[in-house]
Parts: sequence; structure tokens; C-alpha cells
Amino acid sequence: MKNEKLYANPKLLTSADSATLRDFYESRHPAIISELISGLAEEDIWPLIQHADKPLRAEIFSHLDEDLQVKIVGSLKSKDVASLMTDMPPDKRTDLFKELPETLQELVLPALAQAEREDIRTLSAHEEGTAGAVMTSAYATLSPELTTAQAIERLREVAPDSETIYYAYVLGDQRQLLGFVSLKKLILAHRAARIDEIMHKRVLFARVEDDQEEVARKIQKYDLLALPVINAQNALVGIVTHDDAFDIITQEHTEDMEKFMGIVGSHEDAAYIKTSVWGHFKNRYPWVVALAILGLVSGFIVQHFEGLLLQFAILAMFMPMLADTGGNTGSQSATLVVRALALKEITSKDVMRILGKEFQVALLLALLLGVIAFGRVFFFGGGSSMPDGFSLLRIASAISLALGLQVITSTLIGALLPLGASKLKLDPAVVASPALTTIVDITGLMIYFTIAKIMIGGL
Amino acid sequence: MKNEKLYANPKLLTSADSATLRDFYESRHPAIISELISGLAEEDIWPLIQHADKPLRAEIFSHLDEDLQVKIVGSLKSKDVASLMTDMPPDKRTDLFKELPETLQELVLPALAQAEREDIRTLSAHEEGTAGAVMTSAYATLSPELTTAQAIERLREVAPDSETIYYAYVLGDQRQLLGFVSLKKLILAHRAARIDEIMHKRVLFARVEDDQEEVARKIQKYDLLALPVINAQNALVGIVTHDDAFDIITQEHTEDMEKFMGIVGSHEDAAYIKTSVWGHFKNRYPWVVALAILGLVSGFIVQHFEGLLLQFAILAMFMPMLADTGGNTGSQSATLVVRALALKEITSKDVMRILGKEFQVALLLALLLGVIAFGRVFFFGGGSSMPDGFSLLRIASAISLALGLQVITSTLIGALLPLGASKLKLDPAVVASPALTTIVDITGLMIYFTIAKIMIGGL
Repeated sequence: MKNEKLYANPKLLTSADSATLRDFYESRHPAIISELISGLAEEDIWPLIQHADKPLRAEIFSHLDEDLQVKIVGSLKSKDVASLMTDMPPDKRTDLFKELPETLQELVLPALAQAEREDIRTLSAHEEGTAGAVMTSAYATLSPELTTAQAIERLREVAPDSETIYYAYVLGDQRQLLGFVSLKKLILAHRAARIDEIMHKRVLFARVEDDQEEVARKIQKYDLLALPVINAQNALVGIVTHDDAFDIITQEHTEDMEKFMGIVGSHEDAAYIKTSVWGHFKNRYPWVVALAILGLVSGFIVQHFEGLLLQFAILAMFMPMLADTGGNTGSQSATLVVRALALKEITSKDVMRILGKEFQVALLLALLLGVIAFGRVFFFGGGSSMPDGFSLLRIASAISLALGLQVITSTLIGALLPLGASKLKLDPAVVASPALTTIVDITGLMIYFTIAKIMIGGL
Repeated sequence: MKNEKLYANPKLLTSADSATLRDFYESRHPAIISELISGLAEEDIWPLIQHADKPLRAEIFSHLDEDLQVKIVGSLKSKDVASLMTDMPPDKRTDLFKELPETLQELVLPALAQAEREDIRTLSAHEEGTAGAVMTSAYATLSPELTTAQAIERLREVAPDSETIYYAYVLGDQRQLLGFVSLKKLILAHRAARIDEIMHKRVLFARVEDDQEEVARKIQKYDLLALPVINAQNALVGIVTHDDAFDIITQEHTEDMEKFMGIVGSHEDAAYIKTSVWGHFKNRYPWVVALAILGLVSGFIVQHFEGLLLQFAILAMFMPMLADTGGNTGSQSATLVVRALALKEITSKDVMRILGKEFQVALLLALLLGVIAFGRVFFFGGGSSMPDGFSLLRIASAISLALGLQVITSTLIGALLPLGASKLKLDPAVVASPALTTIVDITGLMIYFTIAKIMIGGL
């Protein structure tokens, strides 16, 4: 009952006594506790979490946003920071360490035990975005000569310091990966069976330099709880767990979406409210300005055909629709190709196959839209001013032909740009949209006015 | 060595003997085996998998694409189908059953044992997209009065039929969820300790009717291996496992991306190549056509201001840039709002806060773009035809003011549309882009010509 009140109004925590707080911390998942207290004033948080037992304290703390962690740690004594960090999971600990200001890093490092210090040094040595940078060193290992009963005993011992004991890795003398065994298998096997008899010898693994997204997709594809990571000497140095893989995939998705819309920056999850107005501006202006300047090219095309436009004002009427439709069809094919590339369904080698398919789809779309545009111009286009002697039929034919060609070129450009980017080892998502919209606007206007000039401009 | 050859060229499998095949099937993860053989001719697949032991056979089969599963099953005797389906995980089995043609369903159902039949009936009763439709019935349960040692013994027994034994759910007489205990906790606890003493009593759970994405996000947020699902009577009816949650999130990502680009349809992962040209066309044309028709509205606006346009052809030059820039800035704010809504960082109640922020960001973008547009028109706009006596200064001011206003309104519309959709319980992603682009084109043209008329059109 008491706890219910605290869930509803976490501010009451600041006036609660130690026993109430301890009971409260035990009552829910640490992630929920963390979420509840993260709404409190920064300076109140640490004094409150201190009432939890040390391991739980570190767990609640680990679930806080990294920014908040850095701020809280900044107000603590280096001894307390070291004690807290010792209890944190190795990967979270390293993430926090990397975010600390250098002066604080130098104060905290000597206060840590040798083992944690080396662990931080090893884990933080890897480039962002690689398996090495997301792995944790809190994994369970076994020797091949143990019996099942001994192995279970060993897992029981290392359980408090391991992210998971459901997978254990069997290592040789040089820490090379000989096999892996699940706790399920251990439980089912005979107590006297030797580990090297029951272990899986074909182990799926990643290398430290592998891309984090690739690692996450592997974990997803094979329904794993964790994937071991080995270094250049083939020695086991860490594992990536399923929950980290989950977060990687979500983060990559946010990145893709933002790249699609021309937003630069860190692409952090759930950062909308946290990011300042100025921060949002800095993330958004580069593409908007670059594309606005590129968009001025379309102005030159219009200027070039100004004479034609002044004679046939009806042409101006269909400019926006033509541009939008090109952007829409191009974005559709780009989205499908980018997604298929990301899921490794296609590679840049499939160019001809994809272009063939897109061409056929585009042809169907072009026919349908051409007929609609023709109808619109022919039946309802009479109101516009044009020189005498020009049949609406000719103008309607020109506009619908231009629209059809625009749909076909936009669709093909939409498919080609991401494939080209992928070929050049660039990120396909960046070139997709909105750069695509601006490019097909330019090609679309050229098609439109060229066809108009040929079919009706021979005045 | 022999297996290496088979990995490289799975076609050789068709001429391999039974012993070779069995060895090959054991040598890699079933998902890899499944991927390798799915490239073979449809009619070759079943005769090949038949050589694997029954449980492994079902596992390899379960990893095949659902379409392929349906085709293979279509050529088997109903007795064989029933035997295969009995070995499949309950959720995969139900998914396959739902895809079968009705005639085949009616043949297979009587061939299944009572338990499987009821299981299919229960699991397939839930609406697509809910927790009930993605859950599995292969979970492990315990009675509260067992000792730890008895519980481990029980998990050992049910292991072959459970998706996971790492989480076990403690049930009361009416199958109500009393608590949950992890295998880790069982291993660490004293052998004589009673389950109801050591179990977690606060269990996170979902209800059968909960949205699958919500369930998956819960699993992600709390780093769970599985989440129990209860029915209206609060009885446990299934679990959703972490690997299913992973697949749900990826599928939702694909859906979001496709909705963003106005692609309708099933939004299946990795379906680009599989989908026929006609299928692609059917998924893409509805939005393209609807928006092309909506885009004709912009034609009416241009038509309305035709007189002004004929006097100042320079206005036509900047139309495409104005439209694109509005589309770009609007899409950016829409993307950020849609993503923040999806991650539950904001709700539709935060309207004023978000609009305030977006307004400030838009103001900065408007100022920057306004200055650029002014420079372009004023310094390089001299070549266009216009009536005598009109200063370029006035035209440049009008165009840059219109662009600035277009950026501000587009950004606000981009934020408002998804918030409004969310308020109305619609999917925010659908209204974001490309519908947004077409809408801000229309508002943009109205702003543009209205300002032009006021500032320069008073001729």
C-alpha cells in the first residue's frame, strides 16, 4: 500500500525513511525504480539510491540515462565513484567511464582495483560501433575437463559476476574458444559427463572489429542469448548479450529514420525532449540548406523555359503535382531497396534484377497516373490561358507523357541511388530521401519542359 | 571437409546418402541449414529434411519461410503433416496452420492429437498483432510448494517441450500467476528452499489483448528472456519470448519505414525479391494515386494566381525550391515526433511543449533560409522578365518572407499531424510523409502567392 503511494508520487521518496526506501527498491524491477527516481531533482537521486544494498544500488544506477549518470558521478567523491563502478556491469561501467570528463577519469582510475582498471582499458580500446565496443567481460567460462556437476558448481560461483550463466564458454589454455554449453544442456546431462563430451563444438562467434549491427542481426537470426567475441589471437574477450543486441537494432532503426529525413547528429534513442532547440537546429539545418541550394537548380530550369511557361500557363499548374509524384514514387523504391539492403536480402550486385523489377512496377504506375493526368487536363483544363489554335488534346498528351516518364525515371533513380551508395560503402539511407526528392524534382522539370517544348512549343 | 563442400554447394545434397545428410544436419545451427536448403527446388526439400531426426527435422522446417512451409506441406500426406506439426514449437505450428488452405486445415486437424488440436484452437483465436497471437504455449510452470531440488527435477522433465526453462512461472490452482523464478535463482538457492519462498512475487506480465509492439518493448526495456501472458480470468495462457520480441520490433521497423513512404500491404520483412511486380504495384499505387489527386489541388491554386505568375515569371522559378524545403523541414519534425511517440518519450498531451520547441527550431531555420533566398533573388535574379518599375528588392523580400513562413508552417504541421493521429488512436507514421509533403505543398503555395500578391502584386 505504502509503495503504491510512492509509485504514484515519487517525490514522497525524499522524505521517506531508510526502511521504507529499502522496501520500495526491492518491490519492483530496477528499471522501473530507475525510471521513477530519474524524474526527481539531480541532487536528490544519489542520497536516495544510497539506501539500497550495494549491488542493487549499482543496478538502479546503471538503468539511469548516461547523461544523468555523468552528472551524479560528478558530485561524488572519487572513492564512492570507484565503489559504485566496481558493482556496475563491465559494459555499462566502461560506457560511463568513457563519458566522464578527463579530470574525473584520472581521479577515479587509481581508486579502482587492478582488475576493473584493466577491464576498462580493454573494453574502451575498441572503436565505437564495433562488437568490441558493445561487448561485456562478465561472461562465464568452463574448462573442458570438468564434469557436468563440477561445471554447475562453478557456474553457481561465478553467477553474481556474470551477465548470464545460461550460456558458458569452454576455453583452452590460450583462452581459445573450444565450445559452448547451455545451462539447459548441463541440467539435462548426466552428472558425471565431461564438458568436452557434451559441448557444442561449432560455436557461432563475432570478431572484435565486426560491425555492431551485424552482431545484433546474428543474435536475432539464430535466437541466441549471447554471442562470444574473439580477438585477433582467437581468444575469447567478451560476449554481446541479447538485450544489448535489441538496443543496437532499435538505435540503428532510429538512425535510419533520421537519415531518411536528412537529420544529422548522434541519432540517440529517446532524445527529443532532452535535445535543446539549438541542438535540434544544428542537427537539421545542414541537409535543409544544402537541398534548398540544390533546389535552386530547378529554378534555372524554369527560367530557361520561361518563354514557354508564359505562353502556356497551364504548364505551371501541373508542376507541383509532377514534382510530388516523382518524389513519392522515388521514395517508395528507395525505401524498399534500403530496407532490403539492410536486411541483407539483396546486395549491390543485384542491380539489374532490381532495376528490371522496378521498371515494370514503374511502368504500371506510369500508365495509371498518365491516364488520370490526361483526364484531368483534357476534361477540366479548359480554363487556362493559351495561344489560339492549340488543342487541349495535345497539351493533355504532353503532360501525361511527361508524368509517366517522370514516374519511371524517379523510380529507377530511387532504386539506383541506394545501390550506388552501398557499392561505394556509403550508407544507403543517407542518399535515399530527401536528397532524392530534390534530385527527381530537377530531372522531372527537365523532362516536363523538354517534352512540352517538343510536343507543343513548336510555335 | 565433406560438409564444407556441401555448405558451398547445397545442390550436392540431393545426391548425398543418408549418413552424410544426418552428419550435415548436425554440423550447423538449424537456421543455417534451413537457409542453405531453402535455395533448392521446392520438391527436393522435404525428401532431404526427412533424413534428420524428427525433432531436428521440425526445427529446420520451422526456420523456413512461411510461404515455403505452406507449399511443402501442401504436397504431403495429412498424417505426415500432423506428425511434423506435432514436433514444431506451438507458436510456429499455429502460424503455419493459419496459413494453410481451409481444405488442408480440415484434413490435418483430425490427424493431430487432442492436445495439439486444442493448442492450435486456443492460440489461433487471438487477433493478429496482439500478445495472444504471438505467444507460445511451450512454457515451464511450477507449483509453489515444491522445493528447489524438486523444481529443478521438474524443469529437467519439461525441458524438451519448453521454449525456455530459464524462466519458470509459479501457478496457483486456477493457473493464476503467483510468481516467477529463474533457473539461475534455483541453482543458487538452497536445495530444500520452497519455491514460494524464493520466487519473485511481482511479475511483469502482458494481457492477451495487449499490442504486440508494447509487449516487445516491455521485454526490451526490462531485459527479459520472456514475458508471461494472462487472460481475462488472470490465468497464464502463454509466454512471449525474447527472440519473438526481437522479430516483432524488426517487423514494426519495416512497417514504419514503409508507412512513411506510403507503401501499403503486409510489411513483411525481407519480402522485396519474393513480392511479384503486381504485388509491388498493388502495395504502392494507392498512396501515389491519392496524393497525385490531392496534388491537383495545388494546380488550382496556381491557376487562381495565373495572372500574377504571368506578370512575374520569377515567381515560378522559386516554386519548386519552396515546395521541397517545406517538405524537408516538415518531414524532419514529423520523423522526430513519430519516433518520440513510438518510444513513448512523448504523448499527445505534450502538444504545447512540442509546438513551442518546434516553433523555435523553425524560426532559426526560417531566418537562415530566408537570408539565403534573399541573396539568391537579389543578386542573381535580374535575368527574369517583370513589369517595369518593380524593384528586385521588393521581390526578394517577398520570396524570402514566403519561404520563412513556409518553413515555420511546415514544421508545425509536421509535428501536429502525427500528434493528432496519435490522439485519434491512428498510427502516426501514416500521416507523416508523403501525405505531409503534399499538404505542405498546398499550404506553401497559398502562402507564397498570397504574400506575393500583397507585396508586389498591387499593380
